[in-house]
Amino acid sequence: MVLGKHFIGDIKSPVEKALRCLLEVNPTLGLIESHKVIYNSSGKTDKVLLISGGGSGHEPAHAGFVGNGMLDIAVAGDIFASPSAAQILVGLKAIKGSKGTLMIVKNYTGDKLNFGLAAQKARSEGQEVSVVFVNEDASLNAESLVGRRGLAGTVFVHKIAGAAASRGLELSEVTRIAQKVADNVTTVGVSLDRCSVPGRSGQEGLGSGELEYGMGIHNEPGVLRANLTDLSSVVSKVLSYLLSDTSPVALNKNDSIAVLINNLGGLSVLELNVIAEEVLKWLSNAPQQFKIARKYVGTFMTSLDGPGFSITLLKADQETLGLLDDPTEVQAWPKQFTSKEDTPAESRITQYSPPKKAAYQAKSHLFVAPETLTGVSSALLAKIIAEEPTITRYDTLVGDGDCGTTLLKGVTSINDAFNNGKVDTTDLSTTFESIAEIVESSMGGTSGAIYGIFLNAFVNNLRNSKEGGLKAILQQSLSGALQELCTFTLARKGHRTLMDTLIPFVETFEQTGDLDKAVEEGGKGCEETKKMEAKLGRASYVSAEQVEKDGGVMDPGALGLKCILEVLGKELA
Amino acid sequence: MVLGKHFIGDIKSPVEKALRCLLEVNPTLGLIESHKVIYNSSGKTDKVLLISGGGSGHEPAHAGFVGNGMLDIAVAGDIFASPSAAQILVGLKAIKGSKGTLMIVKNYTGDKLNFGLAAQKARSEGQEVSVVFVNEDASLNAESLVGRRGLAGTVFVHKIAGAAASRGLELSEVTRIAQKVADNVTTVGVSLDRCSVPGRSGQEGLGSGELEYGMGIHNEPGVLRANLTDLSSVVSKVLSYLLSDTSPVALNKNDSIAVLINNLGGLSVLELNVIAEEVLKWLSNAPQQFKIARKYVGTFMTSLDGPGFSITLLKADQETLGLLDDPTEVQAWPKQFTSKEDTPAESRITQYSPPKKAAYQAKSHLFVAPETLTGVSSALLAKIIAEEPTITRYDTLVGDGDCGTTLLKGVTSINDAFNNGKVDTTDLSTTFESIAEIVESSMGGTSGAIYGIFLNAFVNNLRNSKEGGLKAILQQSLSGALQELCTFTLARKGHRTLMDTLIPFVETFEQTGDLDKAVEEGGKGCEETKKMEAKLGRASYVSAEQVEKDGGVMDPGALGLKCILEVLGKELA
Repeated sequence: MVLGKHFIGDIKSPVEKALRCLLEVNPTLGLIESHKVIYNSSGKTDKVLLISGGGSGHEPAHAGFVGNGMLDIAVAGDIFASPSAAQILVGLKAIKGSKGTLMIVKNYTGDKLNFGLAAQKARSEGQEVSVVFVNEDASLNAESLVGRRGLAGTVFVHKIAGAAASRGLELSEVTRIAQKVADNVTTVGVSLDRCSVPGRSGQEGLGSGELEYGMGIHNEPGVLRANLTDLSSVVSKVLSYLLSDTSPVALNKNDSIAVLINNLGGLSVLELNVIAEEVLKWLSNAPQQFKIARKYVGTFMTSLDGPGFSITLLKADQETLGLLDDPTEVQAWPKQFTSKEDTPAESRITQYSPPKKAAYQAKSHLFVAPETLTGVSSALLAKIIAEEPTITRYDTLVGDGDCGTTLLKGVTSINDAFNNGKVDTTDLSTTFESIAEIVESSMGGTSGAIYGIFLNAFVNNLRNSKEGGLKAILQQSLSGALQELCTFTLARKGHRTLMDTLIPFVETFEQTGDLDKAVEEGGKGCEETKKMEAKLGRASYVSAEQVEKDGGVMDPGALGLKCILEVLGKELA
Repeated sequence: MVLGKHFIGDIKSPVEKALRCLLEVNPTLGLIESHKVIYNSSGKTDKVLLISGGGSGHEPAHAGFVGNGMLDIAVAGDIFASPSAAQILVGLKAIKGSKGTLMIVKNYTGDKLNFGLAAQKARSEGQEVSVVFVNEDASLNAESLVGRRGLAGTVFVHKIAGAAASRGLELSEVTRIAQKVADNVTTVGVSLDRCSVPGRSGQEGLGSGELEYGMGIHNEPGVLRANLTDLSSVVSKVLSYLLSDTSPVALNKNDSIAVLINNLGGLSVLELNVIAEEVLKWLSNAPQQFKIARKYVGTFMTSLDGPGFSITLLKADQETLGLLDDPTEVQAWPKQFTSKEDTPAESRITQYSPPKKAAYQAKSHLFVAPETLTGVSSALLAKIIAEEPTITRYDTLVGDGDCGTTLLKGVTSINDAFNNGKVDTTDLSTTFESIAEIVESSMGGTSGAIYGIFLNAFVNNLRNSKEGGLKAILQQSLSGALQELCTFTLARKGHRTLMDTLIPFVETFEQTGDLDKAVEEGGKGCEETKKMEAKLGRASYVSAEQVEKDGGVMDPGALGLKCILEVLGKELA
């Protein structure tokens, strides 16, 4: 998508509106709107109070972590700009506590100055305030005067210090613990592109084959722009920063670690989870033999909609782990599970194997020579290979584009099964039972279901057939299968689905017993779909104009079945 | 970003990896990996079991809603493809319950067929299974045979039916309640672009000024492509679908509603919250005078990383509201707050006004004619208006681009205050106190903090000054302010910040008392930044090469101060 495209481009005060939204969904929060201060309006006050904040655009940080067990107060600046000292001072006075205040500040020049100034002013008015800075970016050189940036590791400081404060510890203890976390946490981010800042146009994005390591959370450049390669290499590179000699935390063999895998904002949940699995696999196989004591995956500290992620490692001890597990009511910290005895994920993964079936008594009158069946299968594969591009093109125009490849996957699996002797060709019913199972497991989606229902019903009909001529049995069994399929779908002739091919084929074959004629009628039904408006299936969501603009295309499902029937007609002639 | 750019483009089985990740972070879940079935491995079984599922790409739906209080089993298909009947059948057998199973299915052809077939097979094996379909998309015409799509409203069915099952109700009751929710829920989505499907290239996106209403959750087209206008109009249009005569739910005056505002996957948390605030405002001002009984904002049912949102309205009664409030342990349902008496958000919003100050006894020896001060202010504004584009250009090269506009905002606010009589010109210390307050509230970020600290310190020094010549007082006060500023920042001469201008100016003025000479030395210091490597401030994250490539640019902060000093020199000559 174009950088700079937003629903909220016209909104003058997006931060204020976003904070109001938090109040709407969280009745425990209060807002001092004039100074963009969110605070816990129903928390205890006979405890150390925790205040944090910074520029906006990092949601859920920091306001999403305000509540019992974590922060008491968060102060929001404008997007990517530190709040002013005046705002922070109002934040410091939002709640009157009896045990002093701990300020947690990400190490950016503006934040350091404004929080520092506010702390000084509050102290001059008699308030007890201590400050912990978080500076854990392992991608930056620590020797620069500005120091390392504060990133998602800050959230560990919020959680652990928040729990310490909730336990009633004194300011000096809470500060010591917060500082210990800040000293033992390290983070590196990587992103496929910059994020999109509302109201800022003309932002330069990364090329389609590039990514950037050490990406900050304010669109500031990373430390290395490189080619986008495979996931395993990217994860390995990010972890190499975290575990290098220049990382701010020295992680040693057998260390106990807490891992936080954080969405920079724009990745899908699916993609983040796939990445996280790779990270956890890498870490559990690392030569350091870490003990992965806690794992957190989600959206904690974003760079607006940045399409990237960061990995945070916290060198943990019993004290920090215990505090991590303390309950908290804040919205943005993941729910915790009470189960103390955490069984490893691997032990909760199983594979299902279908139970062995009772031996089936094959019927001699349903015997077809295996060579014939294998011949049909390989001819079918050749045909679908040839026609797949056309089917895919049609399905891209009127559907979701997977009809051709799904069909090819099914036909290929069937042919492989024949070649590997995995089809039970004892009789036609066992043959089609094998084929039905292959179709069910290899073809997903709608077409897999339609073929699966039809084939299973066909097998049942074959088995219930009385002795007689093979053609008569096939006529009855196909008709019976069609009848059963019709109980599962409302689609009939004229609805622009594969039923437009199937129904005339089955009906003609039942009425005439003439396979060629039936294939011909099925083909005609398919041709007729060209001018039909879609009534069922995903194609029905596409406007009629769009289909007509493309000259009227056959329904891809109907076309796929037409190809299959043509092969059957030719091979069984 | 380019559609189709992914970290996970090379991953063959992303769904399996994502499900494994869920197991890593949630010890209550089990996974039948061969059939992509996630189940609650530690839940009760003497209750109605709930099963749902569908294609992947909608995370956290459905596996994220498995756990005590919601679903017992979720079956995952490949991305945007229904799971097969064989998978679902394994899901149906994953947990042995004693009270039957309710199946919740989104109304898509593939899902209906596969879940329907699996239900039929399970019933033929003696399992009691009832099915509820969710079809709540208000943007689609209900008269088509395929019916309406199931969208984020499905999550309400999961939650409410899940609570009913957890209460121990019988299958018929749980089914009745699930059906009631399905009958009373409606959703419409809108998106700025398509989502990006891993492994699928050549996807056509929307233009930079376009959006699409009625966008589905599988990249299938919406019902209306329109120009991207202001947020209020977009929200109003989406709600007009939900409240129109053709909506599946007739919402009447004074109805009690639950609202769910859902990220389609790619919006930043900030943007979603701004949108949600607008939606809630619209609804609470609607002529229907709805009672907004519950509000949920977050990521529930995505279209991968689709940059859009959907709004779901549920017409609620006491039974459904009670069940919505029942506890659940699933990760993806928002935390609930125990506070029964929910105070309206508006009553928790306050504004802070600083307390009135004690009257200050102005010092006669610090008097400067107001006309002189006003003249300086308007000259300053003219100068910064002229130089802002240059400062911004430099800051875009070496910083985050806001230095020029921030300075202009501050100078404009000061000038407005002079013109509106808001500056207390009783003496120099009151004048600069007013200016410091204006700077603190109008200039954010680092530069606001630096100027704020310096000006406050300057005021204190003026007030502590002993009677004497104005020039001597200014010399001492500027020096004192610089000293105090230096306790807040490590930046000194040579670090490529505004200190490169400030320090030589103050030192020269202190030593010589010659304003022109001091301004000249400040200017020289600024020029020297051209060739410096950044040591502090955000510029330090930019590689030296990039700055040199652009021919060496002055530090934008130093340049801003140089402009200010030049005006002071000229006007006070």
